[in-house]
Amino acid sequence: MNAVDIVRKKRDKKVLDEKEIDFLVSSYTKNKIPDYQFSAFLMAAFLNGMNKEETASLTKAMLYSGKVIDLKSIPGIKIDKHSTGGVGDKTSLILAPIAAAAGIKVPMISGRGLGHSGGTLDKLESIPGFRTNLSIAEYKSILKKCGAVLIGQTKDIAPADKLIYSLRDVTATVESIPLITASIMSKKLAEGIDGLVLDVKTGSGAFMKNLEDAEKLAYSLIDTAKSFDKKVIAYITDMNQPLGNYIGNWLEVYESIKVLQGEVKGDLLDLSKTLSGAMIFLGNKASSVMEGKEISQELINNGKAYEKFLEIVKLQGGNIKVIENPEKYPKSRTIEIMVSKEEGYLKSVNNFEIGMAALELGAGRKTKEDKIDHKAGIIFYKKIGDFIKKGEVIAELHTLSEVKCKNVKAKFYDYLEFSSQSVNSVELIKKEIY
Amino acid sequence: MNAVDIVRKKRDKKVLDEKEIDFLVSSYTKNKIPDYQFSAFLMAAFLNGMNKEETASLTKAMLYSGKVIDLKSIPGIKIDKHSTGGVGDKTSLILAPIAAAAGIKVPMISGRGLGHSGGTLDKLESIPGFRTNLSIAEYKSILKKCGAVLIGQTKDIAPADKLIYSLRDVTATVESIPLITASIMSKKLAEGIDGLVLDVKTGSGAFMKNLEDAEKLAYSLIDTAKSFDKKVIAYITDMNQPLGNYIGNWLEVYESIKVLQGEVKGDLLDLSKTLSGAMIFLGNKASSVMEGKEISQELINNGKAYEKFLEIVKLQGGNIKVIENPEKYPKSRTIEIMVSKEEGYLKSVNNFEIGMAALELGAGRKTKEDKIDHKAGIIFYKKIGDFIKKGEVIAELHTLSEVKCKNVKAKFYDYLEFSSQSVNSVELIKKEIY
Repeated sequence: MNAVDIVRKKRDKKVLDEKEIDFLVSSYTKNKIPDYQFSAFLMAAFLNGMNKEETASLTKAMLYSGKVIDLKSIPGIKIDKHSTGGVGDKTSLILAPIAAAAGIKVPMISGRGLGHSGGTLDKLESIPGFRTNLSIAEYKSILKKCGAVLIGQTKDIAPADKLIYSLRDVTATVESIPLITASIMSKKLAEGIDGLVLDVKTGSGAFMKNLEDAEKLAYSLIDTAKSFDKKVIAYITDMNQPLGNYIGNWLEVYESIKVLQGEVKGDLLDLSKTLSGAMIFLGNKASSVMEGKEISQELINNGKAYEKFLEIVKLQGGNIKVIENPEKYPKSRTIEIMVSKEEGYLKSVNNFEIGMAALELGAGRKTKEDKIDHKAGIIFYKKIGDFIKKGEVIAELHTLSEVKCKNVKAKFYDYLEFSSQSVNSVELIKKEIY
Repeated sequence: MNAVDIVRKKRDKKVLDEKEIDFLVSSYTKNKIPDYQFSAFLMAAFLNGMNKEETASLTKAMLYSGKVIDLKSIPGIKIDKHSTGGVGDKTSLILAPIAAAAGIKVPMISGRGLGHSGGTLDKLESIPGFRTNLSIAEYKSILKKCGAVLIGQTKDIAPADKLIYSLRDVTATVESIPLITASIMSKKLAEGIDGLVLDVKTGSGAFMKNLEDAEKLAYSLIDTAKSFDKKVIAYITDMNQPLGNYIGNWLEVYESIKVLQGEVKGDLLDLSKTLSGAMIFLGNKASSVMEGKEISQELINNGKAYEKFLEIVKLQGGNIKVIENPEKYPKSRTIEIMVSKEEGYLKSVNNFEIGMAALELGAGRKTKEDKIDHKAGIIFYKKIGDFIKKGEVIAELHTLSEVKCKNVKAKFYDYLEFSSQSVNSVELIKKEIY
């Protein structure tokens, strides 16, 4: 077998078989194929597509480039959730303790923030002492003990994905459904899960800007999960505005605590319950997603979800005093209150730019080397459809740097569109697919 | 400007402007863009195409990556010919002296053999003493003195092409009309020509297997030549069987001598006169290609073309005694006579395999390091449409190695197809485009 011949085959819109894809990926991972041949393959795959079987083969090759964690020794059904990412999306922090409290095992390997989109690991690390770089042995032990564990990707998990993702990033081959599918699924399947709930975001703050692409990705992820005999449900959900009100690492942990304590309602609670409900259903602890949602609400009401959150934080080395007294967490030096300059219904939010603004304030990284300011971010109080009076508070900017604050403030109002006519609120959950 | 953005633009089927293409090519040539980004661009350009203006910009960027020879100090109109290559194609050796004898200046920078297709440089170097690696000063001096010069590509000529070609070769991005166009034209325009005659081959022994692709390439080459204000005529010509009867380096020089001496007629003479006729017409020494062809025949009849050939050989260091006594050239140790095993009309020739068989016998290189056996090759006596009796000689295999001879012999008959019904001869010149 020869790399150029395989690249040529994909270039000529032919279907690659499992052996060819495995040869390409395993040779590339072993550094036996140069970057320039693999990038030519990526561009050919981007432009000519890959079918279901090819996507499954690519996923398999990437999955077996590393270790697949064996969780058979731990009793219970293991269900994870994956979201394609967005602005203010902190559902993992809420649904993991809920599902674990319901008796599901939640083995969660998460990522860091990427561009405008936050990352679960960065959020968790805003809790003093919280460790995300656990060994596989610790991962298993905590999962067994409390039913949920949240860690970062290790070197052993799908190393091919790390290599291929870096190459895609610099060769304009990121936004490809089969390549995205294999990247997501190879990492998730390595966790040792029995099932997966997918949250595919669509809208201005999502990677998939339109519903059609989001659906294609959802079906591709579902097909691939099924080809590995995994239980799966996907939701297409809105990302045209921040999820909940808090954006930024500690700010999102704070909001999650409030949701788990039953103090906060709204889109964040609704979506978290839908996703944990689906996990509880896939884990055979409810006869429907609806029942799973009801169980989720109960576990919030009776305090068990919040207790489970404290247990997870404690087992992973986090200081639970901080969770119990979130008001004592240090505040940002500069807090700017943004008030409305006009009156009207909030019609649209450039959610991508809101995410980038949070990054600019210190909540994300511009380069890999940048350090995150855990306190920084945005509190965005309004939702699309809200009527806003002139002078009313829309948002707060939290940051260390007055210069950054000034920069963000200068452009902030451009991200919002108002209407004098009433505007419908946004439909949060657009589709359920399984 | 940023390489990834330019790759993304081509990936998304948008048109690149001259600045973007120049940035990409000049950065790549200066090693400021890695191979993997340029190969992603090549695959995107291969699959999404490039329009006329983009192809001209690419040609320009590649042309100005190196030196453009200035021939203004040499009087006369400078016209070259370029062929896309094939089996037994030695017209350069015949038309250069004819056109020079007609008063045209022929500054010819040629290449070496590539796969099944021979190269003018290798053929010329079979003449003892013949030097193809002249300096630019020698190139100009010989061109001025005798009207024609044939040399190899120097490091100064279109260095971007050399780099890009190597990368295309290993990333399955060779067979792209805009990329082929820019590769050919950047080198030809660097010669300092006023006009160009193009011979675009089609058929089993050509790079463009079908007429449609050959026409597309011809139009692309013409458009690009015109955008640089060059005079241009293209011919689409047949490559379904060897051109003339001799394949292999010295064997082809031998046949060229015979054509220049007026001893050999047929397809090789016809095509050579058509191409030299077009050069004479573009160089304003005839009022039509037809008249140019007549002049060409006269220059063969009165011995001036042959004399010019001797002059070129002498000025480039070749031993003209060898040309004057070609029968004394050493013969191959092993000469195998291939006779027909059946009776019938020759219906088709797998001309690609005939070219590869000549390579196998020693006339070409399998790797860059291989040495050519100048005497080796094939004499192929028959043409499509010929009636052949059982036992009649079809071809001769010339080689140093009995093992190679055996290998080629074993497969040789598979390359020929016979018919009991009469078969039309092949149309040599399929189209004239200008």
